[in-house]
Amino acid sequence: MSEQLFSHINKYVSVSPEGFQVIITFFEFQNVSKKQLLIQAGNSCAHNYFVLNGCLHMYFTNEKGAERTVQFAIDNWWMTDCLAYLNQSRTDFTIQAVEDTQVLSITFEKQEQLLKEFPQLERYFRIIYQIGYGSSLKRMKHMFDLSKEEIYLQFTDHYPEFAQRVPQYLIASFLGLTPEYVSEIRAKKRS
Amino acid sequence: MSEQLFSHINKYVSVSPEGFQVIITFFEFQNVSKKQLLIQAGNSCAHNYFVLNGCLHMYFTNEKGAERTVQFAIDNWWMTDCLAYLNQSRTDFTIQAVEDTQVLSITFEKQEQLLKEFPQLERYFRIIYQIGYGSSLKRMKHMFDLSKEEIYLQFTDHYPEFAQRVPQYLIASFLGLTPEYVSEIRAKKRS
Repeated sequence: MSEQLFSHINKYVSVSPEGFQVIITFFEFQNVSKKQLLIQAGNSCAHNYFVLNGCLHMYFTNEKGAERTVQFAIDNWWMTDCLAYLNQSRTDFTIQAVEDTQVLSITFEKQEQLLKEFPQLERYFRIIYQIGYGSSLKRMKHMFDLSKEEIYLQFTDHYPEFAQRVPQYLIASFLGLTPEYVSEIRAKKRS
Repeated sequence: MSEQLFSHINKYVSVSPEGFQVIITFFEFQNVSKKQLLIQAGNSCAHNYFVLNGCLHMYFTNEKGAERTVQFAIDNWWMTDCLAYLNQSRTDFTIQAVEDTQVLSITFEKQEQLLKEFPQLERYFRIIYQIGYGSSLKRMKHMFDLSKEEIYLQFTDHYPEFAQRVPQYLIASFLGLTPEYVSEIRAKKRS
């Protein structure tokens, strides 16, 4: 379990097995059931989550009451509303498990303490956020650039695992499409 | 000039004036004329830019040949295609000066060397990317959540300085609106 985080950290920075034995004590292991909420819009954003396996999504509810997904996280992804987490303020987003999921969670205070004791993890998180930020700009490009059909097909081509695991209505929500439209494209693709 | 970067770094981490005298030698000062390109789509992404004053934008050109802005940077903002910069790969984006702009630029190799010599700057850049990532998710929410008119009005309310400095067609491009539509809203607002 915790070896997974150890390997992930060591992809980017060097941490010894002994060091990691201390690092892991800053985290809590959590079993999250499908549909369970980890963070709720309107509440403070106290935790950061590392997904061991399963899938989380982050969404907001618009004025019409519809849920819109802005982000998914599967194995080896971090997830939180990173601005509200940084400022320790209320978030507009809800984080929910799409399927039964196992996470390692850390509180803001503990993460700050962890970074003090293991400053090399600043580099790790710098790279994690750099990848997240860069990916979201790339996604913005796709949203602007591609037709609705291309958006869907490119997503399922690039992330076939997602397309299989995540319910269709959530993928539609993430891509800014209606579930009906996704059904249409899928039917067209099959025919 | 360089005091501006010194103050910005010291908002997040502690660097002494003596340390900063070394840090600044990693950077080059650059005067960029309005419309001048700093990074061009298809080329490698070798630099990261800190805007001292002026304005840059990052855009891509879609299949129809239209330019779409995904990001602006004014005073005290960093700008690069941070994924291509991290991987030292080719970028799909072009970075151009919207007005006469002064920047401090750093190459990838020099930044890596800088981070080795001043590891506390990992924390600085971690926070910079965390803010950038969080802001782009917030922007995604607005793009999903608001009507076209609300998107424009919220942008000009939140960033009145932008709305005054940046040409209307670029704001339209950034918000995913047509310049004609922005003209309409502005006319409506004035009437």
